Amino acid sequence: MTTPIVEAKETGRIEAFSDGVFAIAVTLLVLELKVPQLAEDAANAELWSVLLSHWPSYAAYLVSFMTILIVWVNHHRLFNIIQRSDSRFLFLNGLLLLVVTTIPFPTALLAEFLQKPSASVACAIYSGTFVLLALAFNAFWRYAAYRNRLLTRTVTTEQVAATSRSLLFGPITYFVAFVLAFVNVYASFGLCMLLAIYWAVSGFERAAERA
Amino acid sequence: MTTPIVEAKETGRIEAFSDGVFAIAVTLLVLELKVPQLAEDAANAELWSVLLSHWPSYAAYLVSFMTILIVWVNHHRLFNIIQRSDSRFLFLNGLLLLVVTTIPFPTALLAEFLQKPSASVACAIYSGTFVLLALAFNAFWRYAAYRNRLLTRTVTTEQVAATSRSLLFGPITYFVAFVLAFVNVYASFGLCMLLAIYWAVSGFERAAERA
Amino acid sequence: MTTPIVEAKETGRIEAFSDGVFAIAVTLLVLELKVPQLAEDAANAELWSVLLSHWPSYAAYLVSFMTILIVWVNHHRLFNIIQRSDSRFLFLNGLLLLVVTTIPFPTALLAEFLQKPSASVACAIYSGTFVLLALAFNAFWRYAAYRNRLLTRTVTTEQVAATSRSLLFGPITYFVAFVLAFVNVYASFGLCMLLAIYWAVSGFERAAERA
Amino acid sequence: MTTPIVEAKETGRIEAFSDGVFAIAVTLLVLELKVPQLAEDAANAELWSVLLSHWPSYAAYLVSFMTILIVWVNHHRLFNIIQRSDSRFLFLNGLLLLVVTTIPFPTALLAEFLQKPSASVACAIYSGTFVLLALAFNAFWRYAAYRNRLLTRTVTTEQVAATSRSLLFGPITYFVAFVLAFVNVYASFGLCMLLAIYWAVSGFERAAERA
Repeated sequence: MTTPIVEAKETGRIEAFSDGVFAIAVTLLVLELKVPQLAEDAANAELWSVLLSHWPSYAAYLVSFMTILIVWVNHHRLFNIIQRSDSRFLFLNGLLLLVVTTIPFPTALLAEFLQKPSASVACAIYSGTFVLLALAFNAFWRYAAYRNRLLTRTVTTEQVAATSRSLLFGPITYFVAFVLAFVNVYASFGLCMLLAIYWAVSGFERAAERA
Repeated sequence: MTTPIVEAKETGRIEAFSDGVFAIAVTLLVLELKVPQLAEDAANAELWSVLLSHWPSYAAYLVSFMTILIVWVNHHRLFNIIQRSDSRFLFLNGLLLLVVTTIPFPTALLAEFLQKPSASVACAIYSGTFVLLALAFNAFWRYAAYRNRLLTRTVTTEQVAATSRSLLFGPITYFVAFVLAFVNVYASFGLCMLLAIYWAVSGFERAAERA
Repeated sequence: MTTPIVEAKETGRIEAFSDGVFAIAVTLLVLELKVPQLAEDAANAELWSVLLSHWPSYAAYLVSFMTILIVWVNHHRLFNIIQRSDSRFLFLNGLLLLVVTTIPFPTALLAEFLQKPSASVACAIYSGTFVLLALAFNAFWRYAAYRNRLLTRTVTTEQVAATSRSLLFGPITYFVAFVLAFVNVYASFGLCMLLAIYWAVSGFERAAERA
Repeated sequence: MTTPIVEAKETGRIEAFSDGVFAIAVTLLVLELKVPQLAEDAANAELWSVLLSHWPSYAAYLVSFMTILIVWVNHHRLFNIIQRSDSRFLFLNGLLLLVVTTIPFPTALLAEFLQKPSASVACAIYSGTFVLLALAFNAFWRYAAYRNRLLTRTVTTEQVAATSRSLLFGPITYFVAFVLAFVNVYASFGLCMLLAIYWAVSGFERAAERA
């Protein structure tokens, strides 16, 4: 079980299983978008205004979708340099997937309570889930990268260090969003949204330079 | 990371993740088909008539299923000539998947409101989602095809131009369906259904000629 | 696009997408098993008796699960000899997947109405869905097998004819179950259950002989 | 159909389909986490206390998630030495997947009734499902391992015997949890939780030694 072929198969199936979980988590988010129950004779204007009033659902849907997609892109990218696997790594990857699959729940919670007096708790749980997501992603990467444990030999020390540094940004900024939840929920949720946009754009810039 | 093998792996995982999202989005549609709640002693005729009265659910289910399947077939077909990937392309593919995963929501909305006074809004959102779907598909293709950025070398300029032209048909016709939603909802929804049938049949004709 | 490698990729992605749809359809069935809503002080005996009274849910779950699994096994097995693909075949495979993804709905319908006066309609829709499933499977196979259109060259005329013959059994027996739904729902549903058991066992016997 | 390539494809598709089912079952668990319905003016403290009172939901979610993940890791690990497949094996794998896909239902049942007078029944069904899961996993392995039927030739008799012995631990300990459900539900559920933690940690230790 130490031949390159078996190892390739090994990370191949982790990637396939992880892709499945990412794909399902991102798709289940839509089940939180609820069709409004209106009176039989409700007019167009009424349906329209009820749908508009549900904007926190759509905003939370978008931010959660983008965040999971960004984690998937990065997970995908790191597996270009992670080439081996062991059981502790499977466990850390499983921990990351646990946080990813949980995201539809705080998303629904935020959608329900963002405009209500208990918004702070919902928003703290939402951004707190992203803190856990970023921490799990760091643990996943650091375990693989420690003394190049699971990495391909062609990767340089600088590349590893740069990746480790850039991943630290996540837990710190999401922790700021978590604290902001107790001050102003729109600032907290807005920060989560900005981070999703920033990582989407910056990731693509960096990739463009590299290409 | 510039060897053909790594590139192949790269589009391989995009295709696998996209396939997962397409497969889940298409399967989640069934959750919008609701079992009717009847009185305990409701007779066969009553169940039958209630099920028949839910025909907008089945029609919306069929049109959405076919539309997602057609997008999947085309996505699949284009990946026969798209052989490289970069991060901006991952983002555009993610945008396409975002619209695909959202489809169960406007489908449920249309099923609920097609026969009610607020049908225009539901139908505009339904066909409007397909406008976005077609636009996202065009962006996805045009980015890959621009100066043959991500295409295989064996593809000809004529093939690329023909594909680009034929994809323009989507946003235009769905925009017509969107406008029709404010005139006659059955015409708008009927056009969405006709387009699904037309693309299914014509795609297969063209493929048959090519074979 | 006529090299063997591209063809292999082609059926590879059809199989992967189909596997995704089969896997999701089979897993979504569990969402139809509902947790009973009881009074806060309901005792063990009460929960137990309510759960037992839901036996049609579990029976329908089991039969649908086994039926989808048998279709998957056969789909899987036929792709050992189907080696090419064209767009009409994608369409016929899509038609088969459409019926497969729909199965959770008639399953929930049967679970809800099997012990009620409107059982015949629910049971006719359930077995009728299986008629459609068997017809779609026959169309899928016959298109691929017609003049060996999409088959590997190593397959013999006898193997093709034997497969075609054995697949005819499905639509005929499910049609009997469909007719029985209007006579006795337990006989109709029991036949669907027996067919699932028969195909499971016989398929495994035949495979065992072949090995 | 007896070349190594075809065999590899064969177990490849079983693994892919199984991975899909595992990934979906693990992700569907989140749908059992329900957003509480509170009065419009409910304060932060109220939402927080309602969410805290739902701790059985989160605990059941965690234990079920970890248990499915452990089964996936072991399924994955055994396929490093299982290299062939036959139809009976497909059936036994299907039986295992049937139990896996069912898990969201007893999980929701336990979450609903753990703190109510009918907890024993819910907890017996929960741990009883894990008894079935462990039995199905043993059947799956023993069929493949019997006289090395489906195993790679490089595996030793000692490795096979050690695997068979270690898998016996599952049905026995879950049966103890099942019996405990009628004595003390927290002891029963606590044992299920301890087993998940124990297997996670010990599996990783063993793997670490082997590496």
